[in-house]
Amino acid sequence: MRDVQREIAAWLEPLATILQIDAAGNLRALYPAVESAAPRLLIGSHLDTVPNAGAFDGILGVVLAIALLQGLNGRRLPYAIEVVGFSDEEGVRFATPFLGSRALVSRFDDNLLDRQDSQGISVRKAIQDFGLNPDTIADAVLRDDVCAYVEFHIEQGPVLESLALPLGVIETIAGQSRLEFIFKGRANHAGTTPMNMRFDALAGAAEWITAVERAARISPGLVATVGTVQARPGAVNVIAEEARLSLDVRHPGDDVRMHAVEDLIRDAQAIARRRGLTMSWKEHMNQRAVQMDPDLITQIEEAIRKSGCKPHRMASGAGHDAMILAEKVPSGMVFLRTPGGISHDPAESVLIDDVAKALECGFHLLDQFAQSTAFQKRTCRA
Amino acid sequence: MRDVQREIAAWLEPLATILQIDAAGNLRALYPAVESAAPRLLIGSHLDTVPNAGAFDGILGVVLAIALLQGLNGRRLPYAIEVVGFSDEEGVRFATPFLGSRALVSRFDDNLLDRQDSQGISVRKAIQDFGLNPDTIADAVLRDDVCAYVEFHIEQGPVLESLALPLGVIETIAGQSRLEFIFKGRANHAGTTPMNMRFDALAGAAEWITAVERAARISPGLVATVGTVQARPGAVNVIAEEARLSLDVRHPGDDVRMHAVEDLIRDAQAIARRRGLTMSWKEHMNQRAVQMDPDLITQIEEAIRKSGCKPHRMASGAGHDAMILAEKVPSGMVFLRTPGGISHDPAESVLIDDVAKALECGFHLLDQFAQSTAFQKRTCRA
Repeated sequence: MRDVQREIAAWLEPLATILQIDAAGNLRALYPAVESAAPRLLIGSHLDTVPNAGAFDGILGVVLAIALLQGLNGRRLPYAIEVVGFSDEEGVRFATPFLGSRALVSRFDDNLLDRQDSQGISVRKAIQDFGLNPDTIADAVLRDDVCAYVEFHIEQGPVLESLALPLGVIETIAGQSRLEFIFKGRANHAGTTPMNMRFDALAGAAEWITAVERAARISPGLVATVGTVQARPGAVNVIAEEARLSLDVRHPGDDVRMHAVEDLIRDAQAIARRRGLTMSWKEHMNQRAVQMDPDLITQIEEAIRKSGCKPHRMASGAGHDAMILAEKVPSGMVFLRTPGGISHDPAESVLIDDVAKALECGFHLLDQFAQSTAFQKRTCRA
Repeated sequence: MRDVQREIAAWLEPLATILQIDAAGNLRALYPAVESAAPRLLIGSHLDTVPNAGAFDGILGVVLAIALLQGLNGRRLPYAIEVVGFSDEEGVRFATPFLGSRALVSRFDDNLLDRQDSQGISVRKAIQDFGLNPDTIADAVLRDDVCAYVEFHIEQGPVLESLALPLGVIETIAGQSRLEFIFKGRANHAGTTPMNMRFDALAGAAEWITAVERAARISPGLVATVGTVQARPGAVNVIAEEARLSLDVRHPGDDVRMHAVEDLIRDAQAIARRRGLTMSWKEHMNQRAVQMDPDLITQIEEAIRKSGCKPHRMASGAGHDAMILAEKVPSGMVFLRTPGGISHDPAESVLIDDVAKALECGFHLLDQFAQSTAFQKRTCRA
């Protein structure tokens, strides 16, 4: 993190008047407006990524923001631009995401500061060890001069590629449910127990996995995933007495998502009942969908169109810092096509032409904002 | 093992003329015939069991044999009886079963003696440490005066209980196939990858698990079990790129079993092809079914009937020492009803009345053998 901050800071140095690392480790650089009382546009994304990752998830959005400042060639706008490189979006170390952006919306509380990594080191201690002061975390909160947040990010999925489109505009960041399901049956000898006398937890779980997939396939925009499964005792010659599974369900519409989850719970119950198994479940996450700002969506669409591309309105299935910022400030996102939909992998890539289109879109957006008094009158719901 | 051998030996002491532990650790006791040139009947089972086991699997068959000798009250028969308590049937320590009985059929070779436990201690060393001489293992081999092997054993399954019958007679010990299947797809983001663009290895595996169960349900006598499954990378929010599963298939008929395995491989291939996954498989075991001796089956049926029970001919889904002995000597097995079908568990049990019936059956069997010159003319295929 120190290395990337040093590198990015060197690029920002000639462009920004104020350059700082806030107490949450976010890199923040101010490109001043024509006059000092002007509103402020935030552009950015995150500097961190996951282990064994690619080179674009997150940081491409920060680099694009810097390129926009460079492209302005010192030209001042009727609003200031703050470039933000968030310190921790992925949540790898502390197993909770959006640490950086949470600091900007007053959600970096003591609970979060006390949270520990796998070595027992707290967020508070990690901030101190990094040379920052966790007591000043409140200083990172957005002022009410912030009128919008715009984030460029790779799609991390195959949709734009399948439509042969370079850029997309996000309407909604999908809500997400995460649950755990446990099917319980009876362990028994795989050789001596006839098929009709079995209470096979794994067979029940398998039937349900196929039901999950089928339900999501017929509901437009719904994605449902069973990504983990453990069978116990887990021996070749023993019928499984227990199967534990995870369920991840996402949809731009919270009602659709929550009904889908209810249906899948009922499916699991029905399968368990029919097979003489028991089934229990726990909800670990129920996060509502977040709407991007309608005016920003229209502005981004227009900018994409001016760049010679067809704007595609879409939902983001993944979470982003814009989700957090949207609580306080009108937020918008531009997605860049991701070849093969591959992300969180060294093979993650972007097309150079798409990056050029994103940059062009960004310049159009800055111009549109400069001409919109409505835009500049917006303020942060601080 | 030393404790159980000491205890059992004390019970045999007043009954047997020759009492020894052979080089494979089997306890062997001879109850002499009327005359010394008579044939020899082996009765026994194994003394060992699995960790966290019950009190009957194996040793009940040894104790029943001793009870038969006691019941003879010194009366000599036209054949000798050798009670055998096999030292290692389960194969827990060296991960290969039937160590004890293999010594009786010349299958205790150098490969087996060199086999190591998880601590790197060889079978040879373990035998020496126990105070026995592995160089004399050949002395354990059956002589050609052995005319039959009879084993009483708990069923370890629910069939006799479901039929409300105390005793069953084994026709066949089922053959067994063990295979490993690997489905491979593509890891991808659970939020950003639409359902129709997924290559979900776990969803494919789940479809196949249900196909395995369905196939076994419609084929009489077939059991097929997927007892283990691992999904990789195994994260809540990542579509599984790989799913590994085990398959255990058993049937008294080798053709049925092998065709079933072929069909299940084809099913897996078809599922993988339709989903754009790849599938590979490996066979780890392909063990043919073993037939019990037809004359012994008839004799056991008659003895069960004389004990006031309805004899039920059945297959054993589990392996037993009789499987090994049958290579060299006509072998037969009597199953005792197992409450709840529960075995390899502290809750394993038998009903006292069933044990009494088994004993009665045993006495009838000894009498029948005493009256059968055909029986006494059989010899070991040494």
